[in-house]
Amino acid sequence: MKNYAIGLDYGTDSCRAVLVDAATGEEIASSVQYYPRWAAGKYCDPALNRYRQHPLDYVETLEAAVKEVLARTPGAARRVAGIAVDTTGSTPALTDDRGVPLALLPGFEENPNAMFMLWKDHTAVAEAAEINALARAWERDYTAYEGGIYSSEWVWAKVLHALRADAGARQAARSWVEHCDWIPALLAGETRPGSLRRSRCAAGHKAMWHAAWGGLPPEEFLARLDPLLAGWRARLFAETFTADQPVGALSPEWAGRLGLSTDVVIAGGTFDCHAGAVGAQVVPGAFVRVIGTSTCDIMVVPPDELGDRLIPGICGQVDGSVIPGMVGLEAGQSGFGDIYAWFKRVLEWPTRRLLAGRVPEALLEEALDRLVPALSEEAAGIPPGESGVAATDWMNGRRTPDADQSLTGTIAGLTLGSSAPAIFRALVEATAFGSRAIVERFIEHGIEIREVIGIGGIALKSPFVMQTLADVLGMPIKVSRAGQACALGAAMFAAVAAGVHPNVLEAQRAMGPGFARVYQPDASLREIYDRLYLKYREIGNVLH
Amino acid sequence: MKNYAIGLDYGTDSCRAVLVDAATGEEIASSVQYYPRWAAGKYCDPALNRYRQHPLDYVETLEAAVKEVLARTPGAARRVAGIAVDTTGSTPALTDDRGVPLALLPGFEENPNAMFMLWKDHTAVAEAAEINALARAWERDYTAYEGGIYSSEWVWAKVLHALRADAGARQAARSWVEHCDWIPALLAGETRPGSLRRSRCAAGHKAMWHAAWGGLPPEEFLARLDPLLAGWRARLFAETFTADQPVGALSPEWAGRLGLSTDVVIAGGTFDCHAGAVGAQVVPGAFVRVIGTSTCDIMVVPPDELGDRLIPGICGQVDGSVIPGMVGLEAGQSGFGDIYAWFKRVLEWPTRRLLAGRVPEALLEEALDRLVPALSEEAAGIPPGESGVAATDWMNGRRTPDADQSLTGTIAGLTLGSSAPAIFRALVEATAFGSRAIVERFIEHGIEIREVIGIGGIALKSPFVMQTLADVLGMPIKVSRAGQACALGAAMFAAVAAGVHPNVLEAQRAMGPGFARVYQPDASLREIYDRLYLKYREIGNVLH
Repeated sequence: MKNYAIGLDYGTDSCRAVLVDAATGEEIASSVQYYPRWAAGKYCDPALNRYRQHPLDYVETLEAAVKEVLARTPGAARRVAGIAVDTTGSTPALTDDRGVPLALLPGFEENPNAMFMLWKDHTAVAEAAEINALARAWERDYTAYEGGIYSSEWVWAKVLHALRADAGARQAARSWVEHCDWIPALLAGETRPGSLRRSRCAAGHKAMWHAAWGGLPPEEFLARLDPLLAGWRARLFAETFTADQPVGALSPEWAGRLGLSTDVVIAGGTFDCHAGAVGAQVVPGAFVRVIGTSTCDIMVVPPDELGDRLIPGICGQVDGSVIPGMVGLEAGQSGFGDIYAWFKRVLEWPTRRLLAGRVPEALLEEALDRLVPALSEEAAGIPPGESGVAATDWMNGRRTPDADQSLTGTIAGLTLGSSAPAIFRALVEATAFGSRAIVERFIEHGIEIREVIGIGGIALKSPFVMQTLADVLGMPIKVSRAGQACALGAAMFAAVAAGVHPNVLEAQRAMGPGFARVYQPDASLREIYDRLYLKYREIGNVLH
Repeated sequence: MKNYAIGLDYGTDSCRAVLVDAATGEEIASSVQYYPRWAAGKYCDPALNRYRQHPLDYVETLEAAVKEVLARTPGAARRVAGIAVDTTGSTPALTDDRGVPLALLPGFEENPNAMFMLWKDHTAVAEAAEINALARAWERDYTAYEGGIYSSEWVWAKVLHALRADAGARQAARSWVEHCDWIPALLAGETRPGSLRRSRCAAGHKAMWHAAWGGLPPEEFLARLDPLLAGWRARLFAETFTADQPVGALSPEWAGRLGLSTDVVIAGGTFDCHAGAVGAQVVPGAFVRVIGTSTCDIMVVPPDELGDRLIPGICGQVDGSVIPGMVGLEAGQSGFGDIYAWFKRVLEWPTRRLLAGRVPEALLEEALDRLVPALSEEAAGIPPGESGVAATDWMNGRRTPDADQSLTGTIAGLTLGSSAPAIFRALVEATAFGSRAIVERFIEHGIEIREVIGIGGIALKSPFVMQTLADVLGMPIKVSRAGQACALGAAMFAAVAAGVHPNVLEAQRAMGPGFARVYQPDASLREIYDRLYLKYREIGNVLH
């Protein structure tokens, strides 16, 4: 009775393995392993926005996490039918002609340009600008299905930046691989660039891959971008695969390392938010949001409903990137919980500066841990619009709608009576207005949105924020019961790839965790929030 | 040898008496007495912006303060030549036909409408708007010498508001008196409305009195404003007097109460900032600023240099309001130190909310007392323009240039890296830019400004703020050595009225305290501050 699935969720800091009963979705065991080199701060330079991760961080934590969930569950190893992986993205690495990330080769062990370039690495700003300039000038816009603006967070910009920056890497590199494709390939024992199966999700959202132009952008485009890229397209891929498709079976080597059999099916890789949307039971009409420091927003639309519409200013629309057979749409806010955390840091300054060393450390930390709850409690008591304070949410730039990393945040309407909770309330409203701007972009282009599904720390832990979001959007927010929606979504893909369920919709039906809570919008606040949203737009229009 | 002068300075919270050697300006003794009813919070309602002061608060503190300075200085009583008074303003009260403030009459003892209406009382917003509307429609603009906009802080708006609001007061009231005129009149024993000598400073800056139209606005104007004001003009005054002119001699009653002789000369009253400018040695070309919670800015210009120019958007231009024979110009920022205090309150919130009761009160207070110095220290280390944070200074509206109480403050250019000290720096720069906007208004209208003279708490205690102000204005700032410039200026008027000095310029020369420090502008910052000032203007132009 092989009815267990393993979902592997690679986040920014850790690898999480979740062992799930594929019949019910019940979580049997889980394990979190933190990347040891990353935790030590290696290979990164925040001043340069350089964030690199060593492939061994991924490999070691994978092995430890899977072994731990199996060790905790006697008899589980025999019942595992499939494994699927989700990762952050775009997080690519340069590889040699066997598909080995350069950092695993002698001489490159400590070279940041030989490692995976984490999603939030922003060293390739210049290269992204060049890609955009070339795409605007070309007869065909290869960024069209990626929202019309190529980001410095994405693979081609990062790869080009690394090739330019590092002669040694340039010499050794023959191809590149996304983190989400490398792990399944590794487990299945086939990492060669021409053979490993690539994720539709990663390729479509980040690599300008699209069926309309036969895959990746043509050789002429890439070579014009930089002669360094000449010849790369032929060594990469033409086909891509949805995450429910098997990549292969567990290789003998990895079967041995993990204590599993070689008939365990390895599913295709995908990005964390896309897996999270699946785990949180995304359906057409639902706006699924992973809400944490930033948000990642996912929708699915039947292809015939979308037609040939292009939705400008979002992060892409890719057939099969979430649920096979539907077009996955991605958007997101570059600052959400991060903005509350920023305000907390500002407010903590006096306490840390003036009381540190004079009051027991534990007392200080315990008090400051209660800061955001205390602000939320007081802010919830202030009627919307009453304080007059208004803000924008661009303290970390803007991802969507219409990416612009140069934007900054504003707090306006301040008087001598404006209190810390009133400012906090304005910041929470601003993040909700930023959400509304994305929702309105979708609606303007004919995408119906009936409800929001929230996943992630803030969705589960911040009733004030979620109620404000429901009120501002004027639609209900269902909070997924999934504590680990991404890993659960990966487990669903694993279950389908292994044949436990016939397709993702059936897997969602059987394994879906349901909803912990629904926030209903307060219709009486509709008018005031409409007015405050106009003010948000107005501030944004004049100050940027 | 009668060569002592007493300056009485009535502030918002207290009456201060300073006994000065009129030959040298040396302070012999001083005494501060706090208004007891005001300190108890009586007759005020901050939610309504209603701030009233009982005349007995003024009388009792006057008596106590003068007695204390005399008691401290054996033999001083015989040497006092004159007394002069400065007060806040416009701070008027309704009186009966003998000039007695209504609150001193039976039945009115506890009636706020029978008391002095403090400068910052904003209950008469509607009446001010009516005055402005009528003035715009009239063939002659009676607000022309008061900057072209009548304020709710000024006497006619307040008087009309009290008459409308209170039937009992309406019945009893026959005239009104400014605080700065009532005290000299009381001491000289002549308070009758038709006889008491009115201050040029108060009448010219606040009551639309001007020689060009023969004094107060005509009967038709006042009666049209509201029939309640019909007949009032005839019971008020046509003439006004500069503060160096004697009002009379100390009355037998007050000579007895204070232990002084009846040959002590009582000088005319004036407003605190105008007296402060005199005490700080104002001269043509100097922009004198009393810098505290807000600023009051004073200049003097020889009448032939000013000609018939009207400077729009300031608080008035009145011949003799500061130094007899020169035109006094008044401006000011409605928020300065108040803005720093607001930010301090915002930053204190976590400490007070989360640590009160868990850490010794004295430790908390001592730590928070160091907050603004700590912010200043860190902010001083941030090069101008580096943080990108920019702000406006209208958290308490804008007084000048171009009064607009509806404006609010903005903080822009925020990123997730913006620190509390960076925001504090932006607020300090914003108050300096607000100062620059006033200075530029004067310069645009041909008033030469060569230097700034600073008086008041912030000028003496905040080197970071003063250096920033010098850098932003691009001119030196001399900080007056006078700890109590207003009281010293009043003592100078007393010395002239009593004949110790022939005129105010001679009194300044003999009694002036000189300067404690000069802040020189850093020319290397000129360009960056020019750029940041444009940004301040731009934010202000789009967000209001």
